[in-house]
Amino acid sequence: MLPSILLGLPIAARLRERLATTYEVHGPFSPVTPEGVPEAARKARVLVTIGGNRTDKAMMDALPELGMIACYGTGFEGVDMAEAARRGIIVTHAKDANATSVAEFAMGLVIAASRDMGKGERALRAGKWRSLDSLGLVPGLAGNRMGVYGLGSIGAKIASRAAAFEMEVGYHGRGPKAGVPYVYHPTLKGMAEWCDVLVVAVRASAETRHAVNAEVLAALGRKGVVVNIARGSVIDEAALIEALEQGVIHGAGLDVFEHEPAVPERLLAVPNAVLTPHIAAFTTLAQRVQQKLVEESLAAFFAGETPANLVAA
Amino acid sequence: MLPSILLGLPIAARLRERLATTYEVHGPFSPVTPEGVPEAARKARVLVTIGGNRTDKAMMDALPELGMIACYGTGFEGVDMAEAARRGIIVTHAKDANATSVAEFAMGLVIAASRDMGKGERALRAGKWRSLDSLGLVPGLAGNRMGVYGLGSIGAKIASRAAAFEMEVGYHGRGPKAGVPYVYHPTLKGMAEWCDVLVVAVRASAETRHAVNAEVLAALGRKGVVVNIARGSVIDEAALIEALEQGVIHGAGLDVFEHEPAVPERLLAVPNAVLTPHIAAFTTLAQRVQQKLVEESLAAFFAGETPANLVAA
Repeated sequence: MLPSILLGLPIAARLRERLATTYEVHGPFSPVTPEGVPEAARKARVLVTIGGNRTDKAMMDALPELGMIACYGTGFEGVDMAEAARRGIIVTHAKDANATSVAEFAMGLVIAASRDMGKGERALRAGKWRSLDSLGLVPGLAGNRMGVYGLGSIGAKIASRAAAFEMEVGYHGRGPKAGVPYVYHPTLKGMAEWCDVLVVAVRASAETRHAVNAEVLAALGRKGVVVNIARGSVIDEAALIEALEQGVIHGAGLDVFEHEPAVPERLLAVPNAVLTPHIAAFTTLAQRVQQKLVEESLAAFFAGETPANLVAA
Repeated sequence: MLPSILLGLPIAARLRERLATTYEVHGPFSPVTPEGVPEAARKARVLVTIGGNRTDKAMMDALPELGMIACYGTGFEGVDMAEAARRGIIVTHAKDANATSVAEFAMGLVIAASRDMGKGERALRAGKWRSLDSLGLVPGLAGNRMGVYGLGSIGAKIASRAAAFEMEVGYHGRGPKAGVPYVYHPTLKGMAEWCDVLVVAVRASAETRHAVNAEVLAALGRKGVVVNIARGSVIDEAALIEALEQGVIHGAGLDVFEHEPAVPERLLAVPNAVLTPHIAAFTTLAQRVQQKLVEESLAAFFAGETPANLVAA
């Protein structure tokens, strides 16, 4: 009998096919809920999921044989880590597998929002050619300052790219990092006052929830741009919409939202927001590595070994 | 009596005000034509214009006192240089004043077109959240190849930024350049075969007109992306539309068009094109420097000195 696994996220058809040669595969479900687990899947030893899904006590109760939770992406914010530890369930994730892809996408949002590309494109598509007369100038990137909130794998790759654009780079996080050539800012608000572009690259957690609030946005100021490729929960979305509507900040580039897939109508209506549907990691490169990590985690787990990509305590 | 100048392009109101304190200013006209020169402006000693405007024998005939043509931007392709030289009219331009701004915008188009940002944004704004299921993956930038057509000031700044994105960079132009860390490709078609992203950064001329044609686009191939921040004339726009419609290439990012401000309906209709209305140089930085160069050219010319930013022969 093949070992049983449950897929709690949509995955590529070819990955499912490959997995089905080795495992009894249940799903994919998008997302899976405790009530939605079919009787046959209750014996699953592994749940493959993503950080955005709730993998809490109720979910673990529904899968009494569970030994591993394999998060497909980098995030694991939906996993009750304490509960998993208590039950001896190990948790893996993709670590920085998608860092390069997400960082390059983040810079795309930085440029698009800072340079009014979205506005320009919509004007052009509406049959209105923009001239120097009809628009205000923007500061551009070179000579201006980027503040990176969360200098992990993704944040560091964003920072090095921004430096190549002749930007001055600073960062904020739990504390200064050794060997980093950028200025550390002990407070997020202080960094927002200092920088022109604020990029959110921090992990979602109770601590970072709504960290980018009305006060931080006011500190960023009317020429400021905020970009988020991390998780929607880090920004107070209502406060951000207000700030965009009122001209408190210049613009925003967002690949993530507080209540995905819902994007508020008011956010869609502001002209100075570039909005993409959580696609920053959707490259062949990132997906290939993430798929490989899931397969390696499963192989290690069922061989009784420790997967290489455990979530660090 | 103040010396007389003619503005053959739209300019910022504040620049016009500053010029009017020192010169008798005619215009702005957008654009000026030989027939459109008012009687009072025929005595203008300087024509301030842009490269895209025709400044030919007829135009020079309409301004018999002309001693200098000052091009506001980098381009001067509309100026009949031989005719100007014959008449002893000097020609100035903004040299590489806007190179940084244009290069960062170019990278924005590279990312947007390579990463399907425009497609993603339009889907989201149409109420369709995209999932991994509903879209094909894209190669992304890292690990892939950029070919820069025209390694001038702008091209070199695009190349260094692309290198920071972990791209391999090559270039094509009239000949290899000394001290350049990128691979030279002797033919444009050969470079198109080699690269994933082709960026047009070459000056418009009879030689470069329609250089990016159906054959080059076919060589670029179905995962290829073409970006143009130079001049619309360098790409055979009809061939490009055909290539996008037929899936001969993956996508395009265009800030310039063959018949600005006209953008063909068929181009607007292809989903995989990011289109902006010639705004790559619209930053405070670039405009400040370009304005300063026009004012310095005028001051030098009327002081009987040689302006520092003459078009190189």
